[in-house]
Amino acid sequence: MRSVWLSTATLAVAVVVHTAAYDLRQEALDTFSILPAAAPAIEGNPTNPSKVELGRMLFFEPRLSKSGLISCSTCHAPGRAGADNVKVSAGHGGQRGTRNAPTVFNAVFSKAQFWDGRAADLRAQAKGPIQTAVEMNNTPERVIATLESIPDYVTAFEQAFPGVPDAVTFDNVAAAIEVFEATLLTPNSPFDRFLAGDDTALDAAQRAGLETFMVHGCARCHKGVNLGGEGYYVFGTEKKPPANVLPAGDKGRYEVTKKADDTYAFRTSPLRNVALTAPYFHSGEIWDLDEAVAMMVRSQLDSKLSDQQIREIGAFLRSLTGDQPRVALPILPPSTATTPKPEM
Amino acid sequence: MRSVWLSTATLAVAVVVHTAAYDLRQEALDTFSILPAAAPAIEGNPTNPSKVELGRMLFFEPRLSKSGLISCSTCHAPGRAGADNVKVSAGHGGQRGTRNAPTVFNAVFSKAQFWDGRAADLRAQAKGPIQTAVEMNNTPERVIATLESIPDYVTAFEQAFPGVPDAVTFDNVAAAIEVFEATLLTPNSPFDRFLAGDDTALDAAQRAGLETFMVHGCARCHKGVNLGGEGYYVFGTEKKPPANVLPAGDKGRYEVTKKADDTYAFRTSPLRNVALTAPYFHSGEIWDLDEAVAMMVRSQLDSKLSDQQIREIGAFLRSLTGDQPRVALPILPPSTATTPKPEM
Repeated sequence: MRSVWLSTATLAVAVVVHTAAYDLRQEALDTFSILPAAAPAIEGNPTNPSKVELGRMLFFEPRLSKSGLISCSTCHAPGRAGADNVKVSAGHGGQRGTRNAPTVFNAVFSKAQFWDGRAADLRAQAKGPIQTAVEMNNTPERVIATLESIPDYVTAFEQAFPGVPDAVTFDNVAAAIEVFEATLLTPNSPFDRFLAGDDTALDAAQRAGLETFMVHGCARCHKGVNLGGEGYYVFGTEKKPPANVLPAGDKGRYEVTKKADDTYAFRTSPLRNVALTAPYFHSGEIWDLDEAVAMMVRSQLDSKLSDQQIREIGAFLRSLTGDQPRVALPILPPSTATTPKPEM
Repeated sequence: MRSVWLSTATLAVAVVVHTAAYDLRQEALDTFSILPAAAPAIEGNPTNPSKVELGRMLFFEPRLSKSGLISCSTCHAPGRAGADNVKVSAGHGGQRGTRNAPTVFNAVFSKAQFWDGRAADLRAQAKGPIQTAVEMNNTPERVIATLESIPDYVTAFEQAFPGVPDAVTFDNVAAAIEVFEATLLTPNSPFDRFLAGDDTALDAAQRAGLETFMVHGCARCHKGVNLGGEGYYVFGTEKKPPANVLPAGDKGRYEVTKKADDTYAFRTSPLRNVALTAPYFHSGEIWDLDEAVAMMVRSQLDSKLSDQQIREIGAFLRSLTGDQPRVALPILPPSTATTPKPEM
């Protein structure tokens, strides 16, 4: 008798959860999508294993920087969710950048790169920091002279770009980095498992947070496979954030388009693995995820949410942490007599 | 008939090579030894897989630095032969050190650490850069506060030091790093294969260089399994090196012992993988291996060697490059609300 009672109760709960989860899932599937486990094909940049391997070497290659000290991985550390967990990164000679480093993980799925979207894709993005004075402070010519001076790199480019004469080019550096970065995915998050049909993947608070996230407007901007990275929105439409979080001098997308409407607009942050990528916002000023959510609610939403709803959104965001990619450090080939020397 | 003639000739050559190599090998085995492929036991620091894994995490952990940007691997990069291939490393705020970073590979076999031998072993060494102002600029208290604020680290210490109450200590940080570093070995170099009996492992120039290296006195200091790392010798006994290579202000071992005899004495550099670890000397001023050999010959040897002999020593030194360890980047656990924030 006792066991029958328990079974009935369990069944009843299961039905309620299933019914509730069904609509939520369908709504979520209409708004987001499951993160693929395999690197997507990239238009105009066909991949192959040699190109991915070359890209892995270049991603960890500090000789892409003038100092010989800074690589892509310095600020986009695969062991730290593809970011660096500091307010703003340190570049050439210890100089600090002006915006927080976004994660490289899943970035291939975003519709544009950088906080202001000034690069259309990852291979355009890769060329930026290499040449920026406060970052790697190098030139395409010096990068190519470096790589051409190292026979193992010349061979690696020939294998990565078969049949291409003079394969060691700055475009190909970027193309190889892009196909490697496209492998840096974090599938199988609780959220993805929920989307795929696992009712147990999210707890009640996370499901409530997901619902609030969709119903109250967060998902109007934070949508798609990366829950962001698809458009530009002015930061502070409802209430201007404090000056440290939104410094007056950084006008965001306006710097790219020079359109008044884009003043203080930024690319919507992709939110996958957001629990691992503090500090938050382009200014890197906020370390606590719930505080960041509360600030977004105040600055962007016309709805007023309760503390509990804000905590539930935070719980939902923590369900976006996927399997982190396992990356083997490449063994980099040695410099030769003709390799440009590191310069301070 | 033709095949018999060939066989006889082959046999004759084999006998000559074997006889010539036999004495050279025995002399070499009396002076050096084969690099083990497995991490040695460390007195006072028993290893276990959890401790090695914790050490791997800590070795790549930038939160051991005050800035949250610098880890052991920053200057001892496993993808770059355990060093950083710059004159002197960059530390906190981009500040430069005063001596070239020695490789961590095979360092467990050296009898003391640092250019002046001020650390008896790798766990004493590990504590140095963490606290040095121009390097990681941190304090033991802040390191422990950081690790204790991260639950995955607390668990990792408990597993690495089973049965030890309050396992998160600065001593244990260093102990874990030491057992990981002890796994960073480069066995199977051509020289090791020669020592093990493979007559084809070294070519004629390398064998000649090895003989010169032993007969003319290089091996008086550069001996043992690491061809160095066993004692202290004054740099410039025969001829003082140029002031950029031996800066007057850095008195080497004297800084540790305050003995006049130790003025400008340095720990003999271990030479394994030396072809990968340019630039050379504690000052990091010389980029070309043959030039470094020529300088050592002039400054340290009472013999005068020909250009050919110097080139042959260089060829021999290039036979000391072993299999580079494959290291997977650890996935580091996220900070929490109580983790000390990075400080500039």
